[in-house]
Amino acid sequence: MTQAVKSTNQEHINNPDTLQTYYHPLPFVLESGESLPELRITYHTFGKLNAKADNIVWVTHALTANSDPTQWWPGLVGDNELVNPEDHFIICANILGSCYGTTGPRDFNPENGERYLTNFPDFTIRDIVRAHELLRRHLGIEKIYLGLGGSMGGQQLMEWAIESPELFENLCILATGAQSTPWGIAFRAAQRMAMEADPSFFSSSPNGGKKGAEAARAMAMISYRTREAFNSSQQDDNETKDNFRADSYQRYQGLKLSQRFDARTYYILSKAMDTHNVGRGRGSVAKALSLVKARTLVLGIQGDLLFANEEQEHLASHIPGAQLEIIPSHYGHDGFLIEAPAISKSLDQFLKQ
Amino acid sequence: MTQAVKSTNQEHINNPDTLQTYYHPLPFVLESGESLPELRITYHTFGKLNAKADNIVWVTHALTANSDPTQWWPGLVGDNELVNPEDHFIICANILGSCYGTTGPRDFNPENGERYLTNFPDFTIRDIVRAHELLRRHLGIEKIYLGLGGSMGGQQLMEWAIESPELFENLCILATGAQSTPWGIAFRAAQRMAMEADPSFFSSSPNGGKKGAEAARAMAMISYRTREAFNSSQQDDNETKDNFRADSYQRYQGLKLSQRFDARTYYILSKAMDTHNVGRGRGSVAKALSLVKARTLVLGIQGDLLFANEEQEHLASHIPGAQLEIIPSHYGHDGFLIEAPAISKSLDQFLKQ
Repeated sequence: MTQAVKSTNQEHINNPDTLQTYYHPLPFVLESGESLPELRITYHTFGKLNAKADNIVWVTHALTANSDPTQWWPGLVGDNELVNPEDHFIICANILGSCYGTTGPRDFNPENGERYLTNFPDFTIRDIVRAHELLRRHLGIEKIYLGLGGSMGGQQLMEWAIESPELFENLCILATGAQSTPWGIAFRAAQRMAMEADPSFFSSSPNGGKKGAEAARAMAMISYRTREAFNSSQQDDNETKDNFRADSYQRYQGLKLSQRFDARTYYILSKAMDTHNVGRGRGSVAKALSLVKARTLVLGIQGDLLFANEEQEHLASHIPGAQLEIIPSHYGHDGFLIEAPAISKSLDQFLKQ
Repeated sequence: MTQAVKSTNQEHINNPDTLQTYYHPLPFVLESGESLPELRITYHTFGKLNAKADNIVWVTHALTANSDPTQWWPGLVGDNELVNPEDHFIICANILGSCYGTTGPRDFNPENGERYLTNFPDFTIRDIVRAHELLRRHLGIEKIYLGLGGSMGGQQLMEWAIESPELFENLCILATGAQSTPWGIAFRAAQRMAMEADPSFFSSSPNGGKKGAEAARAMAMISYRTREAFNSSQQDDNETKDNFRADSYQRYQGLKLSQRFDARTYYILSKAMDTHNVGRGRGSVAKALSLVKARTLVLGIQGDLLFANEEQEHLASHIPGAQLEIIPSHYGHDGFLIEAPAISKSLDQFLKQ
């Protein structure tokens, strides 16, 4: 393995366990041709780079998560977990367009001094990855021991491993697919329509769009869970005629999201997810996947309604040498977070092989 | 079979093939205890009552349909179909709360001269059936050869056959269940949240709530179809980055619904569907289903995401002597309309036994 980290940038990566910021003061050109005048990337690191610089784990996060995987991936990332700061130098960058630190719709456009809000330009998963690349170069990282991400996080890793085949030694991608399906797009289109039905979404208020985002989140919950999970946990007695538990649950989930997340961010990240297609501009999906050189573990979650297990089977059959495992779960898609202990076990075995 | 139609009401049922109206000038008390000051029921009839009065087919319609099943159930109901005006006297009544003729949210409340809109009282599937009962008595019908309905139409028939065990000789209920599941309620809660996010829903405009209803319909489409149906019919090429077909399809379906259907009606019928539970006040679901005396055919549609096939299996195992068949389909729930030829074949065999 080559020297993975340029010595000049050691100072940036030896501030472990903190939220850090990288400013890129130049225009960031998007796949669409539009550009952002500048870019701010926030990221967390945990642990220390070892002498050989071969202990880097880069975690990519999903739609509404942030750059702290120890918060949202307990059982897999954190002290005493498989991915831990004792053994690894863990990096997770907040994604482009998010409301958790990296440049997004709530930011002020330096060109006109106004918040972007609904004027934030559309972008793609590839643009998100190109922002990760800026940070990687800034940090002087040349080799990553493990790339780890589920759902939209998996989409990012696939793109990255295709564009930079030598970068990752190992990959673990979960509950994801090679391209967004019409089914997934239909789910997200309904969510965007709900957001568009709320006129405050289009207002100049930085907090606009909350009611629509709540409805969108409730719709998303359907795709994140399973019939069985709803039916076993939200059952009412036979006499109930109103205020059903499943209804209250959906409203609670909506509210929880709208209180912590920005509606315009939710909307534009949903569009970015739609754009995921590793085959774009690369001949075909199969050709693109054949470019991956990392040792790859593909994990599917049983009953995943959003990313069907056949999508993970497809990935494993097209990424050279990839291994596939379907994690048993009651929860469907959200199992990629909830089933962390089982995921941890599979990943551990894979890394030890 | 007893004389099925009282002679005094013959004039009402010998106006075939027309939209007819029955006015009930008295208060209609709902299961909630609230009441409507009066009730108007519109209904279609097709064909003629035969001499023995044993050719009555009562069709119950689903959420957004109307009282003309020859329009929305081709291949099963209409000239030259299994259920046809040549052989049968077909009745279908528009359901309580609908915007297609029977008293609903767009009507003027005679007590204050204003449209009900969002002030229309909540009601249940049982209330819908009690409105059917008013019409049945008005028409003097005492025996129905066949009750036929899918989805919310099936919910009505189950309630009716439990309350009036001698009324139906045969029942065919499709793509339905004994009680609304938390899963189904969660789908509809998300839809109602989308409607609530559109402030025009709460306005005094009789056409308010269209944008929210469009989003709600797009969400409902997910539950009406299957992953396979979306993925096979709405695929884009690898180069597409925006305006995906699945997105356009969802917007088209939303618009089509909002142009023909009232948002407040959509909302309140969605709530009525949630209330479906044949076990309410009857000890248990199993006890309620054991009261059905009609010969019953339960049809499920393969891949139905909204009413799982296990719900039809449950019905068939608890309705005495019921037969079960799962109709092969690519479409899921909507197959109860789309697969009319296969349904027709199964029903024909059942009726001939």
